Amino acid sequence: MLNVSISPDGTEYPLPTEEQTAKEIEKLKKITEEQKKLGRKIVTVQGLGFVGCIMASVIADATDKDGNPIYFVHGHQRPSPRSYWKIPVINQGKPPVSSSDPEVPEIFERCVNQKRTFRATWNNYAYEVADIVVVDIQLDATKPSFGEAEKGYCDVTHFREGMRTLGQNIKPDCLILVETTVPPGTCEKIVKPIIEEEFIKRGIDVKKNPPLVAHSYERVMPGANYVRSIRNFWRVYSGVNEESKKLAREFLTNVLDVENYPLTELENTNASELAKVMENSYRAANIAFTLEWARFAEKIGVNLFKVRDAIRKRKGTHDNLLRPSLGVGGYCLTKDPVLANWAMRDVFDIDDFLGVSINAVNINDTMPTHTIELIKSEFPELKDKNITVLGVSYLENVGDTRHSPSETLVRLLKEEWANVKVHDSYVEFWPEMETEKVHNNLDEVLPDSEVVIFAVGHSEYKDLDPETVVEKSGTKPLIIDCSNFLSDEKIKKYLDLGCKVKGIGKGHIKYLN
Amino acid sequence: MLNVSISPDGTEYPLPTEEQTAKEIEKLKKITEEQKKLGRKIVTVQGLGFVGCIMASVIADATDKDGNPIYFVHGHQRPSPRSYWKIPVINQGKPPVSSSDPEVPEIFERCVNQKRTFRATWNNYAYEVADIVVVDIQLDATKPSFGEAEKGYCDVTHFREGMRTLGQNIKPDCLILVETTVPPGTCEKIVKPIIEEEFIKRGIDVKKNPPLVAHSYERVMPGANYVRSIRNFWRVYSGVNEESKKLAREFLTNVLDVENYPLTELENTNASELAKVMENSYRAANIAFTLEWARFAEKIGVNLFKVRDAIRKRKGTHDNLLRPSLGVGGYCLTKDPVLANWAMRDVFDIDDFLGVSINAVNINDTMPTHTIELIKSEFPELKDKNITVLGVSYLENVGDTRHSPSETLVRLLKEEWANVKVHDSYVEFWPEMETEKVHNNLDEVLPDSEVVIFAVGHSEYKDLDPETVVEKSGTKPLIIDCSNFLSDEKIKKYLDLGCKVKGIGKGHIKYLN
Repeated sequence: MLNVSISPDGTEYPLPTEEQTAKEIEKLKKITEEQKKLGRKIVTVQGLGFVGCIMASVIADATDKDGNPIYFVHGHQRPSPRSYWKIPVINQGKPPVSSSDPEVPEIFERCVNQKRTFRATWNNYAYEVADIVVVDIQLDATKPSFGEAEKGYCDVTHFREGMRTLGQNIKPDCLILVETTVPPGTCEKIVKPIIEEEFIKRGIDVKKNPPLVAHSYERVMPGANYVRSIRNFWRVYSGVNEESKKLAREFLTNVLDVENYPLTELENTNASELAKVMENSYRAANIAFTLEWARFAEKIGVNLFKVRDAIRKRKGTHDNLLRPSLGVGGYCLTKDPVLANWAMRDVFDIDDFLGVSINAVNINDTMPTHTIELIKSEFPELKDKNITVLGVSYLENVGDTRHSPSETLVRLLKEEWANVKVHDSYVEFWPEMETEKVHNNLDEVLPDSEVVIFAVGHSEYKDLDPETVVEKSGTKPLIIDCSNFLSDEKIKKYLDLGCKVKGIGKGHIKYLN
Repeated sequence: MLNVSISPDGTEYPLPTEEQTAKEIEKLKKITEEQKKLGRKIVTVQGLGFVGCIMASVIADATDKDGNPIYFVHGHQRPSPRSYWKIPVINQGKPPVSSSDPEVPEIFERCVNQKRTFRATWNNYAYEVADIVVVDIQLDATKPSFGEAEKGYCDVTHFREGMRTLGQNIKPDCLILVETTVPPGTCEKIVKPIIEEEFIKRGIDVKKNPPLVAHSYERVMPGANYVRSIRNFWRVYSGVNEESKKLAREFLTNVLDVENYPLTELENTNASELAKVMENSYRAANIAFTLEWARFAEKIGVNLFKVRDAIRKRKGTHDNLLRPSLGVGGYCLTKDPVLANWAMRDVFDIDDFLGVSINAVNINDTMPTHTIELIKSEFPELKDKNITVLGVSYLENVGDTRHSPSETLVRLLKEEWANVKVHDSYVEFWPEMETEKVHNNLDEVLPDSEVVIFAVGHSEYKDLDPETVVEKSGTKPLIIDCSNFLSDEKIKKYLDLGCKVKGIGKGHIKYLN
């Protein structure tokens, strides 16, 4: 086993030794004592991932009316080779994520080095001293294969372990606030029973000290509003009992901008958990709906983007209709319907099926395949074809690659033995495709390209003019427009230059000649 | 065969004789000549149904800048026993539909009796003299059974006959404006070829006189804004060639309020036809999405209406999320996804499937079954149970019963041999359920009722207080709330009075005791 953890910039951090662990506990004790004397409550954030690390800094940044910090935050991360590096990085006052939001480095510098209200650790002692634990452990859905989301499931092993650790360590009156997107039923049917079990083992009277468990979901968005997307949003929450609800309400009121984004309390944690996955499933279903009609439009000479504009004039009922694209990326929309459908059957034992939502996942998941069909309508054989993919993130002008549809696209193209090159100026390293070099210079990917796929709407690609693309490629590549990134004028230019052009939902291209 | 046609008020109208037909042609000739001298163009509306009769009156009501009528309208209806009565009724200046919109009787009186710009006829001579024919023939989808919308199809026999009649009669330069909601591809692949075929038979040179065919869809809504819903809406249109588009644009500009509701021209009729069915399918999918989550919420103690309120706070992406209900009624949402899916396979021979949209129809169609399951969770045996259904229309405070989910509900309850009584103050006669007496007095339906279903949100039902319902029934009926028509306070009252209460999407009721 590795005993170092390597950060994205290549720095090696040795994993902590037993001796260091003993010292760390002393340090945690000392800091906690000091902070309590300052009248601050102790919050431990479990999991310093994409949400947890920003949430931790937002909590550490919260102040009372007089500008004094309300909380001291222990950010907790397990000391694995994969993630341990985050701890020393954070403790230098640096964020463990890269972001286009300038507030991200600022809030880390401010909370870690100036206010000194945020410190990262790997030690479970941070749970023993916590008044509140915010759970930001990752919880994934597994889909055995594309197009079969109905067989998807949620492996809660790791999450259950995390909860057991809490049950073994926390004070009986510590609030556990689950922020992870979980299958409905998780707080009542998984978290609460585990904590009770561990409390009983520890001799805690669970009648007198029922576990305090609440759920409240974030709606974090990567990009320029990363920090604000945590702090400035209408939070929904609930708890497994009245005390949990009350503590959650107090905590969220202290930490978030509830004046401009009021809280919504729901009747139980099932409701709060369901609201989050339903919200994301709604978006997934909306996208899938558009996609299935886009495929139809392509075949009958229709520009679905114009049809969409016409339909969206019905404000209030139809203006949420989304645009077709390469598919759905990101962390939530690809899994949340699966979490819900799995919970219905496996957590609640209900004989029903989320037909629209699960179908939506299948349609969205198979969109990269559809894009490949567009290419194959021109080049039936992709072996050794030089194909350039412009954009690997899952959102325009952002470098987040998690569950990006480009990932699926590139994998499928490689399965067909195409010669794929990818470009994305926002991405230096592609964590999900470690062996894939992401080029940052178009001159490295366009020469000799036979197919150029406009996969993501980065402004850089929208600004590209057809002459440049054709000149740099030195060929007359087939152009694939995945989400109306090219205007009709540009498409006409490509056609004039001798290129062929295909687009998702853009059946009208055949009339543009 | 019957030789009379009976209007809803019971008046008998003998069908026209051959002699009358000859006279009618003379009359049509004379009127048309007179109207042409007045500088008016002749419009014939084919089909005086729910859309056609109002559209005809709106066209007849259109004036130029100086207030002079632009068009004279022949409303055409075939002289069948089922529909002939509409012709004499309209020609008396009365609408052939009942409506809560006061503009409806006004516009008929004005156009028929005062302006004299609208007259109904059964004779095809009206097509010979027309400058424009507006097609408002009904076109239905057939679904072999509930929950199998994927097997649905569209029988275009009657529609094709209607087009053939036009091809045999119209002038070569007459614009055919199809307003019927049709499967995508209809104008190009059905209407145009039939007209061409008939033109060729008539010796018309179709190179010189290509058929002029356009499509533009209405978005009529029954109720208090019936006439306005025709006149004041963002129309989408297209044509099979440039001349058709131009003529359609001119006509729609003359007839509708395009200043406040600008027109949208799409590139071809496939696009315009697709826009309409996609728009309705979006709504159907949206409702189905809510329903599948409502069923989940019911089983896990969650009030989906509160969850929906929380989700809808995300303006711009989530505020279109619809409310769960007894299902989907009306003419469009239950058939349009089927029309589109059928067209994809049978008109265009495309090997694809509108998975989300068709699934949505199935979920919506089976919601009455789900409602019955709610009842059965209390009364497993429905035979001889006294069940009261409050509301049979498909929209609140409106009497339109077409494709109402109450119809399915009542049919299914009767299949279980329940003793069903229905109430609706807006409905005197239920055309789809002719043998079912619709009561207008609650005292006729509540006594001895064991199950009271709040099926439609008429204000009258929302205003009912629990004491009245329990007192009138003389029992402690099971209350079924189909779409959050009852507040939690009312539900608590029902529970206090000894009733049980169940509601679609209202899993929280079990905590209200």
